[in-house]
Amino acid sequence: MISPGFTGGTLDRADRLRHDSEAFAAALGDWRARLLKLENFEPELDSEGRLAWTTIADAPEGSELLLLGLDGDRPCFAALTPGMLPPAGRPMRMFAMLEQFAPGEAATYAAARSLLDWHTRHRFCANCGTATNIFRAGWARSCPNCHAEHFPRVDPVVIMIAEHDGRALLGRQHGWPQGRYSALAGFLEPGESIEEAVAREIMEEAGVRVSDVRYIASQPWPFPSSLMIACVGMAEDERITLDTHELEDAIWVSREVVRAVLAGEPGPFLPPPPYAIAFTLLTEWANG
Amino acid sequence: MISPGFTGGTLDRADRLRHDSEAFAAALGDWRARLLKLENFEPELDSEGRLAWTTIADAPEGSELLLLGLDGDRPCFAALTPGMLPPAGRPMRMFAMLEQFAPGEAATYAAARSLLDWHTRHRFCANCGTATNIFRAGWARSCPNCHAEHFPRVDPVVIMIAEHDGRALLGRQHGWPQGRYSALAGFLEPGESIEEAVAREIMEEAGVRVSDVRYIASQPWPFPSSLMIACVGMAEDERITLDTHELEDAIWVSREVVRAVLAGEPGPFLPPPPYAIAFTLLTEWANG
Repeated sequence: MISPGFTGGTLDRADRLRHDSEAFAAALGDWRARLLKLENFEPELDSEGRLAWTTIADAPEGSELLLLGLDGDRPCFAALTPGMLPPAGRPMRMFAMLEQFAPGEAATYAAARSLLDWHTRHRFCANCGTATNIFRAGWARSCPNCHAEHFPRVDPVVIMIAEHDGRALLGRQHGWPQGRYSALAGFLEPGESIEEAVAREIMEEAGVRVSDVRYIASQPWPFPSSLMIACVGMAEDERITLDTHELEDAIWVSREVVRAVLAGEPGPFLPPPPYAIAFTLLTEWANG
Repeated sequence: MISPGFTGGTLDRADRLRHDSEAFAAALGDWRARLLKLENFEPELDSEGRLAWTTIADAPEGSELLLLGLDGDRPCFAALTPGMLPPAGRPMRMFAMLEQFAPGEAATYAAARSLLDWHTRHRFCANCGTATNIFRAGWARSCPNCHAEHFPRVDPVVIMIAEHDGRALLGRQHGWPQGRYSALAGFLEPGESIEEAVAREIMEEAGVRVSDVRYIASQPWPFPSSLMIACVGMAEDERITLDTHELEDAIWVSREVVRAVLAGEPGPFLPPPPYAIAFTLLTEWANG
């Protein structure tokens, strides 16, 4: 059983409550209701890596409460507070916290973060420019002018290695920490399948042609809201033609080398962090 | 090799031209440039199921040209025409055409349709409400006020069967053609993996618990712009608890029955059309 980072959440998303305004009102009135503690999109973790919660009475004046789901029958919310701005820059402090999450807790946080981020960037109707209102317990916005309904974005991203003769292709983006190499990745576009996006991205970035793409695993990635889809494609040969806008370098590495690096031994590259699906992908590939 | 509907496109998306305004201008000035013929989002097909093209001089006054890609080195465009509105209602006439497409042609059409549809619904900045401008050769919009950049949406959808004891769970939505049953489906949400979305949707719609979800295939679905991700999940048992808002009925069918129905024999349900990934999914599942 593969368990990539940010998976394994235990909240029941309770879709039925989103469509039932009475049940939603009852959830808001439930004295046991909990509010996720966040400061500037960052959670508070206890010493066991569990998310901190407070009561919804602690939500700042003017907040709108988004229903994250039910913990048993206890409603759990996140607060969209007045003037909340999208997070800016790379969340370096956040990345440092990710290895501390208890299993499943990062998944709850990921859903909350992606949802809040989406609201902060989508206060207006893309169809007509009017300010929109929250509905469906925080899982949608509607336009009072043109009546368009808007739902949170999830952007599919393919992340993959090419394989040839028992070796995997890894790339290095400009500005990454020294020595870090990882799987290639890119956004899937309208009008293509996962398999086609994998082949296109590897061709664009490294000039390597692949076929027989196989799916390995997926994870949500809440910076801001991607669905990472990890795959392996079989390469025709090992000639690399680098797109130097996208990549600084690309290398072929053997299963033995990947296994050693993932086990913490020194090698030709630094491995991705364990919460990234590139880590899951390399682990699955290296173990054959 | 699985080839779901809307896959197999042959245009080179030529990402490099989207980032190079001189190269894009040269493509627009290329006398061999072609414009996809569309009327109200519907294509024109020749007797062999190939898309009809015209010259870009035929684009209506005030059109903006979106670069679909290169056919060899010939640039291919679609026109976003002034006042173009999103398609309304279910594209029934379009569905009737889908079986006539030659291999790969539906993929080119899918990309064009999803991209045009997105532009017609996203003329304003979701962040600040200002009218936005096209850039990146038609693959993005930017806001002149807050400088937010917006990219075409692709909404991941999981579509799946539960399997138990050699039988597959199929559902029927309200309003479907009489006798039609198909795989269950639903939008993947922020904060969940493909496998988690599959389990959640089957539980919500049919009350069936699944684990060991395996990926089968994917396809783009241009109504308006989904990524369909087809999976099979292993069910704990066959008790169904229907969500009657979502489904009118659900049934368990054996491999033999599915094989017979896909081969055109009469059976307890009408199969999905061949361009739908449900058809691919059932075919792969029935063939074991």
